[in-house]
Amino acid sequence: MEHIVCHAADYGLLPGDCRETTLALRKFLDNVRKNSRVTLEFTPGTYHFYPDYAYEKLLCISNHDEDTLKRIIFDLSETKGFHLIGNGAEFLFHTDCIPFYAHKAENLTLEGFSVDYVRPSYSEAEVLEVTPKTTVLRIDCELYPYEVRHGRLVFLGENFEHELTAWLEFDQKRCAPVHNILDMNFNGSRGEHFTWYEETGPNTVAVHIKDEKSFLPQSRPGNRLVLRHHPRSHPGFYVTQCEHVTLLNVQCHHATGIAFMAQRSRHLTLSHFNVCRSNKRPRIFTAAADATHFVYCGGKITIQESLFENQLDDAVNIHGIYARIKKVLQPGCFVAELVHPMQKGVCFAEIGEMLRCVDHQTMLETGQATIKSYSMLNRDYFYMELQEPVDGLIEGNSIENISWVPNVEISRCTFRNNRARGLLLTSAGNVLVEGNLFQVPGAAILMEGDASNWFESGTTQNIVISDNTFDNCSYVPDWGYAPIQATPRYQKTVPNRFYHQFLMLDGNRFLCFDDRLLHLENVGRVCFTHNKVQKTTAFPSRKGRPVFNKNCGELVQL
Amino acid sequence: MEHIVCHAADYGLLPGDCRETTLALRKFLDNVRKNSRVTLEFTPGTYHFYPDYAYEKLLCISNHDEDTLKRIIFDLSETKGFHLIGNGAEFLFHTDCIPFYAHKAENLTLEGFSVDYVRPSYSEAEVLEVTPKTTVLRIDCELYPYEVRHGRLVFLGENFEHELTAWLEFDQKRCAPVHNILDMNFNGSRGEHFTWYEETGPNTVAVHIKDEKSFLPQSRPGNRLVLRHHPRSHPGFYVTQCEHVTLLNVQCHHATGIAFMAQRSRHLTLSHFNVCRSNKRPRIFTAAADATHFVYCGGKITIQESLFENQLDDAVNIHGIYARIKKVLQPGCFVAELVHPMQKGVCFAEIGEMLRCVDHQTMLETGQATIKSYSMLNRDYFYMELQEPVDGLIEGNSIENISWVPNVEISRCTFRNNRARGLLLTSAGNVLVEGNLFQVPGAAILMEGDASNWFESGTTQNIVISDNTFDNCSYVPDWGYAPIQATPRYQKTVPNRFYHQFLMLDGNRFLCFDDRLLHLENVGRVCFTHNKVQKTTAFPSRKGRPVFNKNCGELVQL
Repeated sequence: MEHIVCHAADYGLLPGDCRETTLALRKFLDNVRKNSRVTLEFTPGTYHFYPDYAYEKLLCISNHDEDTLKRIIFDLSETKGFHLIGNGAEFLFHTDCIPFYAHKAENLTLEGFSVDYVRPSYSEAEVLEVTPKTTVLRIDCELYPYEVRHGRLVFLGENFEHELTAWLEFDQKRCAPVHNILDMNFNGSRGEHFTWYEETGPNTVAVHIKDEKSFLPQSRPGNRLVLRHHPRSHPGFYVTQCEHVTLLNVQCHHATGIAFMAQRSRHLTLSHFNVCRSNKRPRIFTAAADATHFVYCGGKITIQESLFENQLDDAVNIHGIYARIKKVLQPGCFVAELVHPMQKGVCFAEIGEMLRCVDHQTMLETGQATIKSYSMLNRDYFYMELQEPVDGLIEGNSIENISWVPNVEISRCTFRNNRARGLLLTSAGNVLVEGNLFQVPGAAILMEGDASNWFESGTTQNIVISDNTFDNCSYVPDWGYAPIQATPRYQKTVPNRFYHQFLMLDGNRFLCFDDRLLHLENVGRVCFTHNKVQKTTAFPSRKGRPVFNKNCGELVQL
Repeated sequence: MEHIVCHAADYGLLPGDCRETTLALRKFLDNVRKNSRVTLEFTPGTYHFYPDYAYEKLLCISNHDEDTLKRIIFDLSETKGFHLIGNGAEFLFHTDCIPFYAHKAENLTLEGFSVDYVRPSYSEAEVLEVTPKTTVLRIDCELYPYEVRHGRLVFLGENFEHELTAWLEFDQKRCAPVHNILDMNFNGSRGEHFTWYEETGPNTVAVHIKDEKSFLPQSRPGNRLVLRHHPRSHPGFYVTQCEHVTLLNVQCHHATGIAFMAQRSRHLTLSHFNVCRSNKRPRIFTAAADATHFVYCGGKITIQESLFENQLDDAVNIHGIYARIKKVLQPGCFVAELVHPMQKGVCFAEIGEMLRCVDHQTMLETGQATIKSYSMLNRDYFYMELQEPVDGLIEGNSIENISWVPNVEISRCTFRNNRARGLLLTSAGNVLVEGNLFQVPGAAILMEGDASNWFESGTTQNIVISDNTFDNCSYVPDWGYAPIQATPRYQKTVPNRFYHQFLMLDGNRFLCFDDRLLHLENVGRVCFTHNKVQKTTAFPSRKGRPVFNKNCGELVQL
């Protein structure tokens, strides 16, 4: 196999702040895309990438907002054996863009660089004063340009202008979400806080609540707020229909969405892939959403020796999608709906793949069949025909594609200080979680599955969680019931049938500030063996017993 | 040539309110698309078309907002000789959708039906009270569902939810824009009014101004407001790269954008195409933007015996696009920018077409050359190579495509009571405007051309305006200086060279409430012959002389 080694500098890819660098990169990639093996090696330094001349593509990205044209800087689509060696280069991006995208790539390796944004998609403030009706913020208008306009707080970016919609408070010392914190949402739908903004001095904004609600009693001067004002629109790394993708020794300090997002891809390895804070730009937040997210992936997902911290959503989420049967046109032939707004337009299946039909009340399988034809009518609906007759194919029931099931290994990672949870595991493959450190405010491990809210499938078969440390997790009630949680959503149970099959927790260490360990529903068999539990005084204790257990099968405890 | 006549009812296209009608239509059109000649005949009745199962396409529509996926009901793309006969059917659409779209169609005829929306994209209110700081509105919440939420006025549609951004006041008796009115814009950029909303009773909303500004002294109780709260996103009829398109005896009562929009199409005929108010749904407004708009069209544009009234922008606008030279890479090879937000992503040229280079100060031609290569980098920029050397190819100058120049005939139409102007004529073809009645608040005829604001090109050669009646036009200063206006934007003049070449006004009747007739700049030769001017007392007179004339060549007056 021909192997070409290219030095970035030879192609006009030089360190520095130049809008044409993106154009040079685009030209280079278009020229080598069809070559079988290409290594692109950068010299160390800081490279700026602007969206101005970037490639543009209509993308419906799962778990992101805005199904529209997105600018892409590194478009690695259809490459075979592409290897990027950063040599420690710093890649600085300018909004709005997707730094790395690959569609139908094979054997892709990205190695040895950092990713950050000059002006991130979120902003930050320090709480100066807080009373029930007013919070005074300090915002560095050099870093986070803003204007108070018509009583509204508007943040200005390089290519965006958005109103503040929400914030989340981080403890100044712990650099982690405040104990018992809640997301604060402003001026949107009816339930949100009604706020009003006033510029009270340079870098100082007073936020007044105009309705009967109050600011949170857990809010404190000195704490830091992540100010959210941008749609979750552009992942940092986005791979679709790829095979064998490896990220190695990559630091991702910010993304305008999920840091690493994969759909319908097989064999993905993240090793020393850190979604982490930067020394150069010491923001309290990293990615705008999850650190990693896998939708309808297959093969093996490996995440090892990585640090995921301070991102604005979960560390890892692995799942499929439930679509809802909308209209049965004739036997085995129907229109189905992608229900969740963030799943619109996502590819659900291909011909020949296997479909599972699911009862909407029990969430249990009614039957399986091969997909004979599949065509998207639009972002919302698709048309499908099945090869064999199948039970339960009625309007209101759900379907999932069971041809995409990854095995998962997550080991020797640290998950800390992010919004929400640690690992969301809903894969029917073999899942091993080993030797990790969890310091997360919500559930450290969550096994869900629902066809009513997030529409994230599916059932699990075999989850082994061993030799991990769960260090004072689950201190924010909104983000979980206990450090380990299984809560699929169902309305009815069937005797001796379960949504999740087998969960083993073995040899883990739990540092806990109260009694809560497991909250389990609808799991067939649970083994909780050789785990050590140690009490701490990290936070005030919350009500709850060590094992909450509802509609489960066998529980083995040693 | 094979000719198939199809009766809509035979294909499940039946009158009534059914979401699946769109799906049946889609199936029908996909099946007959490749046939050479198809007539589709509807039985009279009211047909509902929902976007749910509609075809969806990424469209960058000139002079519209939101370059994203659009739902399309009648997708007539690539048809050859398609003829729709409505037999007076009423087609009712549900937001958001483009009712009729055709790309690369030939010999398309649409005939004998009306188009309206169940819940239009704008809303309406009656002014109950008005003081400098407060206006009290009556809004029918059955027709125009709304909520006051966090002090904001939010309008709810079938598939939308948008805040009020602007309104325009119509005189209750004249059903036309109020004399001397201004657009009122709210809570957006700094210059806009800072307003605050309060629900004071059923169907009643008080609007308070919170800054130093006031409501307009020309506002009156009893007047009707068009409340604007939706992006200008979906034209009623949208044709691109088509030839020989005819709309005959079609009533368009609303569009979520321009009623009829054409790009890069040749030979377009609108006959008895009325953008007009409906008896059934007596709203004060019709289309959300212009009645008709033609960008880089060619062949002959014919508009005859049509009525365009109460739409929220001009009656007819015919122009090209100026792009700006951004970066010359090597001689004859450059990157250019589509500057105006509403022109992003629009196809500028094809290989082999002729380019004109324009000096950015004089707006006059520096040279012409054949386009050797053209490729869009993204919505903003394209790359171009020219066949021959050309003068003036420098950064900051503009370019236009001169291969698309239509001849225009607009005759026996009525233009009245809309926002803004009548005809915007910037075509270098032969333009004849004959026997029409103009009752518009802005300039009735406007010849512009600019590469600094709207970037709408270009120069005109031969415009003949004869036997029309201009009935008390130009009563809103914001929308024009005089009934007839030529105001290309330029910074410098060149002796004996002009932007517009020849304008003849012959045998017209001017009913005027003051002296103003012509406001002309940068026109080579103007003939004003055999016109009758009659004084009226329709409005208070405005300062100005009959002929304002600056940097023009010869003026012949008889």
